[in-house]
Amino acid sequence: MDAPDPFESSPDETRTEMMKATYDALQKHGYSDLTIQRIGDEFPKSKSLIYQHYDGKDELLVAFLEFLLERFKADVPTDGFDDAREQLRMIVEYSLGSFDSNHTDFLGALTALRGQAPYDDAFRTQFADTDDFFREHLADIVRDGIESGVFRPVDPERTAAFVVATINGAQMQRVTTGNDEPVRAARDELSEYIRTQLVVEEEP
Amino acid sequence: MDAPDPFESSPDETRTEMMKATYDALQKHGYSDLTIQRIGDEFPKSKSLIYQHYDGKDELLVAFLEFLLERFKADVPTDGFDDAREQLRMIVEYSLGSFDSNHTDFLGALTALRGQAPYDDAFRTQFADTDDFFREHLADIVRDGIESGVFRPVDPERTAAFVVATINGAQMQRVTTGNDEPVRAARDELSEYIRTQLVVEEEP
Repeated sequence: MDAPDPFESSPDETRTEMMKATYDALQKHGYSDLTIQRIGDEFPKSKSLIYQHYDGKDELLVAFLEFLLERFKADVPTDGFDDAREQLRMIVEYSLGSFDSNHTDFLGALTALRGQAPYDDAFRTQFADTDDFFREHLADIVRDGIESGVFRPVDPERTAAFVVATINGAQMQRVTTGNDEPVRAARDELSEYIRTQLVVEEEP
Repeated sequence: MDAPDPFESSPDETRTEMMKATYDALQKHGYSDLTIQRIGDEFPKSKSLIYQHYDGKDELLVAFLEFLLERFKADVPTDGFDDAREQLRMIVEYSLGSFDSNHTDFLGALTALRGQAPYDDAFRTQFADTDDFFREHLADIVRDGIESGVFRPVDPERTAAFVVATINGAQMQRVTTGNDEPVRAARDELSEYIRTQLVVEEEP
């Protein structure tokens, strides 16, 4: 058996490098000026590898969207919370709290790809799946909270849909206006809504 | 003085036709495949007129965004309401109620242009102005409602920021997922929030 070539990276590593190159090219040029050529310029290996993996820009970008959305799902805080109230609080804080520039860049990339979804079935399907995932995750938290007695007996699906819409809108506003203040105001009111509408009043 | 040429359209009419051509090309090809050539194909007059008015695609699209956002502002319901409660209810219904395909196309176009904003200062400034306009309009309604005693003494700016974020997020979800049900759920919960958190309870 041949020893593996230490300089040959795994298919997964090559894929990750292509995704990184696409991300870097997007940050540098924006979505409308994104070309395979420019993605290739950010790719450390031979550009021809990109064409071996993807039929063209459209197919590469669908894979890129899938990659970003997998990252998004993996980043949703899921474990290690005392109770549903704390878990929901952390999700709001993580989604609408202070961002570093990496987080802003990431949401900017997702927003750019969202902008294609009205005209692209494959993008629409992926965003529908991701929004469903996030909403179902929140609905599960609300159901847990109701069962364990920390939340009132609200409609979990409706509450989750509302929270997801608010988070999606505020995040989009942040990266498309550069204006943080309305995002903070929306977050404060969302926290107040959770405190007064969802959380069972504690004994005085 | 020469008589005006009846076949020469006004500069405003030509501008409107260019905007219409850009809109039609966007609906047909999507944002990333939008070119001056394709916009020209939808334009009933000489393509050279486009170049006389705009230095290139970027300048044309900034004008197009301005045109869409003026339309958006003009469409926000402002007059003829009995009270602030009714006005706010109409805005939520108009923003998140049942849409015809024109409304969906219009919001799809705005969402596509939003996708450019993370990478374009001019777009970001225009979306910041429009979000400010919508939010200030809602804050004025909330203030009116408090003054006239139909709303509780809430923070008008914070309440408006929250409602705008929810509407923006739900609209974006609708046009980028094709899934209406979560939008309806978010709207129902927003209406409930307005009823229970904002509106002063009526005498039984």
